[in-house]
Amino acid sequence: MGKEKTELQREVAKRLENRIDIAENTRKTEGLIDAIAESYMQHPGCARLDQDKLMNKEILIDVLGKLREVLFPGFYEQERIRTEYLKYIIGEKMEYIQYHLKKQVATVLGNSELCEDCSKSMISARAGDIVDQFLARIPQIREVLATDVQAFYDGDPAAYNTDEIILCYPGMLAVSTYRLAHELWELKVPLIPRIWTEYAHSRTGIDIHPGATIGEYFFIDHGTGIVVGETTVIGKNVKIYQGVTLGALSTRKGQKLKGKRRHPTIGDNVTIYANTTVLGGDTVIGSNVTIAGNTFIIDSVSSNMKVSSRAPELEYSSMRS
Amino acid sequence: MGKEKTELQREVAKRLENRIDIAENTRKTEGLIDAIAESYMQHPGCARLDQDKLMNKEILIDVLGKLREVLFPGFYEQERIRTEYLKYIIGEKMEYIQYHLKKQVATVLGNSELCEDCSKSMISARAGDIVDQFLARIPQIREVLATDVQAFYDGDPAAYNTDEIILCYPGMLAVSTYRLAHELWELKVPLIPRIWTEYAHSRTGIDIHPGATIGEYFFIDHGTGIVVGETTVIGKNVKIYQGVTLGALSTRKGQKLKGKRRHPTIGDNVTIYANTTVLGGDTVIGSNVTIAGNTFIIDSVSSNMKVSSRAPELEYSSMRS
Amino acid sequence: MGKEKTELQREVAKRLENRIDIAENTRKTEGLIDAIAESYMQHPGCARLDQDKLMNKEILIDVLGKLREVLFPGFYEQERIRTEYLKYIIGEKMEYIQYHLKKQVATVLGNSELCEDCSKSMISARAGDIVDQFLARIPQIREVLATDVQAFYDGDPAAYNTDEIILCYPGMLAVSTYRLAHELWELKVPLIPRIWTEYAHSRTGIDIHPGATIGEYFFIDHGTGIVVGETTVIGKNVKIYQGVTLGALSTRKGQKLKGKRRHPTIGDNVTIYANTTVLGGDTVIGSNVTIAGNTFIIDSVSSNMKVSSRAPELEYSSMRS
Repeated sequence: MGKEKTELQREVAKRLENRIDIAENTRKTEGLIDAIAESYMQHPGCARLDQDKLMNKEILIDVLGKLREVLFPGFYEQERIRTEYLKYIIGEKMEYIQYHLKKQVATVLGNSELCEDCSKSMISARAGDIVDQFLARIPQIREVLATDVQAFYDGDPAAYNTDEIILCYPGMLAVSTYRLAHELWELKVPLIPRIWTEYAHSRTGIDIHPGATIGEYFFIDHGTGIVVGETTVIGKNVKIYQGVTLGALSTRKGQKLKGKRRHPTIGDNVTIYANTTVLGGDTVIGSNVTIAGNTFIIDSVSSNMKVSSRAPELEYSSMRS
Repeated sequence: MGKEKTELQREVAKRLENRIDIAENTRKTEGLIDAIAESYMQHPGCARLDQDKLMNKEILIDVLGKLREVLFPGFYEQERIRTEYLKYIIGEKMEYIQYHLKKQVATVLGNSELCEDCSKSMISARAGDIVDQFLARIPQIREVLATDVQAFYDGDPAAYNTDEIILCYPGMLAVSTYRLAHELWELKVPLIPRIWTEYAHSRTGIDIHPGATIGEYFFIDHGTGIVVGETTVIGKNVKIYQGVTLGALSTRKGQKLKGKRRHPTIGDNVTIYANTTVLGGDTVIGSNVTIAGNTFIIDSVSSNMKVSSRAPELEYSSMRS
Repeated sequence: MGKEKTELQREVAKRLENRIDIAENTRKTEGLIDAIAESYMQHPGCARLDQDKLMNKEILIDVLGKLREVLFPGFYEQERIRTEYLKYIIGEKMEYIQYHLKKQVATVLGNSELCEDCSKSMISARAGDIVDQFLARIPQIREVLATDVQAFYDGDPAAYNTDEIILCYPGMLAVSTYRLAHELWELKVPLIPRIWTEYAHSRTGIDIHPGATIGEYFFIDHGTGIVVGETTVIGKNVKIYQGVTLGALSTRKGQKLKGKRRHPTIGDNVTIYANTTVLGGDTVIGSNVTIAGNTFIIDSVSSNMKVSSRAPELEYSSMRS
């Protein structure tokens, strides 16, 4: 019995100790969470508390996927698209796109500074109008994309057929996403166009700002590292290769440059080979120009010219290992 | 009673209005869907209607994942691989790979121009043969990959151990995917090899065409922006760094260049540092060559040489802010 | 009856043939699986058999996602964060993070060479300590990230507001992931910091090694192709653009260079424009320096200088088509 009592005592002691441990840990955890909550108060710009929710990125990516299915039917779905059911198939996708995109556009309009006093119903009506206008442009977007697909095929000897381009060319993902995003940008929708182009950027390494203007029959090869800035203007039948930057000369003035032309103008029928950089809002590349790879351009180039940089002399020496 | 009637009248009026709105919206929606359907007829190349389905990209990515599990067992799974059950574990994965890959190969063979008159059973038998030949090469692919893993470890002082390389080095994802895709390419399977390498390209920024030929003990560091073109030939023990292009000199002739040698030949024991470009089908880099970073090469380099470009003179000026 | 017998005979013959086919296929399949199993024995470094499991990459990516939700509450969730429930919302996420991260840290400590004789309970206690220390740094990490968000906004005229930056700028994903990974790196956790930064690399094309040291108010624009090596040291208020490499001069000595300073030191208030390369552990870029785009630097630069490379002369010729 004495022994039993001792065991009981041990058990009690252990449980007490355990409780002290748990209390100690609880105190530590509470302290940590308090410290984090405190830090939210100090940097309110990095903590959206008690604010309307931001748009839903995942749904927006889904909407983009459905839009690409509508642009290129039969390429990304698993079911066969039968002509006699075509309108129902399109209709079902458009219903999803229209419903969700309108909701997301209303969310970003409601959050934006553009519309501080707007009522919910006004915002919703405005979002509905914008989405209707956007969707009405799908046939024209397809017109332009058909020329892009052709440009990709004509320009790339490694292309097997146009199906391959639509299915798996990263440049085609980037260009089709840009063409959709640019239309929403033109309709003055904040944030969503950028969400879309940054999604394509993440998947492809090709960073085309939705504000850029790009003519038809546009071809991107390989593409990783391409940057096309917000105020770039590109003509028809232009080809650009991996690592090309169409950028700003200096951004030292930061936000003061907002809305100003900072990026170059590229004419029609221009080819810019890999890793070339063209900078500046006053830089105009004329039509029918070819710019060699690894070239650094900060001045305008007149039409019908080939430009390259005098290749730095190569230096050879024997290897000693 | 007069009042009740008025309410009823209002209700009726409202419902009628609603119906008119709905009718109006329905008309608009139908118009939009008609316009999209119409646009499909105008650009049939961008709309696969009433055609056999294309291969299933998601399943092909799953198959690639399973293949990488077979190549590097115990690295990507959550279960421990016990030797006494090893064959069952391999077998279960191989069953999935064989079944699905055969189906997808049959799909691409059926769609391709190579086989317009083939019967379904002929295509299926051909697909089965190809997949059997492909799977039989797994031990050899592992042989080569073991040398690659070693090259990655030997070449990178930041590598902690070979587990880290197999688990999370983007270069290893790109190289192992390329080695699998290249075998299918050699077996003349269309599209699927490219789907695989473009998946790796999307995940890593490393764009190796499945048609390229690459020797053992190959090392890629960092990797973002690397392009290795379709007809490139690379020897043994070659290292390439981020931003290196092994590309074509000009692609102005587009599809007319199909199948022609357009990309360089690289010998054994060659190192090509970051952001260097080597172009042209006649460009041969000999063995034991080191090419410095930021170099632009369009001519052959003989063996045992170090090559760099005379660095452009730097210009310094004081900052004025 | 004779006819019936014949049918039966045919059926029997067919079944026998089938069995032979199946036997033949089974033999082939077994041969293939044997060959693969055999190849595992020959390259044990590429086959983790009968070994403790490696950490779970997917869970680690989930933990990273939750950590980013704690860093920037209200940006990535779908629910609104109400202040009166704030601590519960943080607490719920922290519980997940603490539980899973501790488990994963214990796994990598258990696998690592650092701790060959450690008991399971010792490893678990050590993992708990490390994770507690790591989580206690969250408020300080938020301090620094708040300066980064401001730097991104101030530096980019295309930035609409700071919400856009936190939501979808790839540079912010890379920098916030790096800041978390660096703290775990400092606490000497193997593998996990690299898993995190390679995840961000895969999503953004920005490759920042967790071992690098980076001061506050750091800005990355566009970002694809950026490489920041393991032993790089970067001061405060530094901006770097797409394609910038802060790398090693030569890695010919491979593993012998482990732990040595191989990457440059960058002072405060430095801007490095696109596609510039700065190499070498002895290369020190002073404070208040601006380095132009496309510049190749292997020597130190004193403070308060602007550096560019004499642009290679451009060569123009008329296009002949």
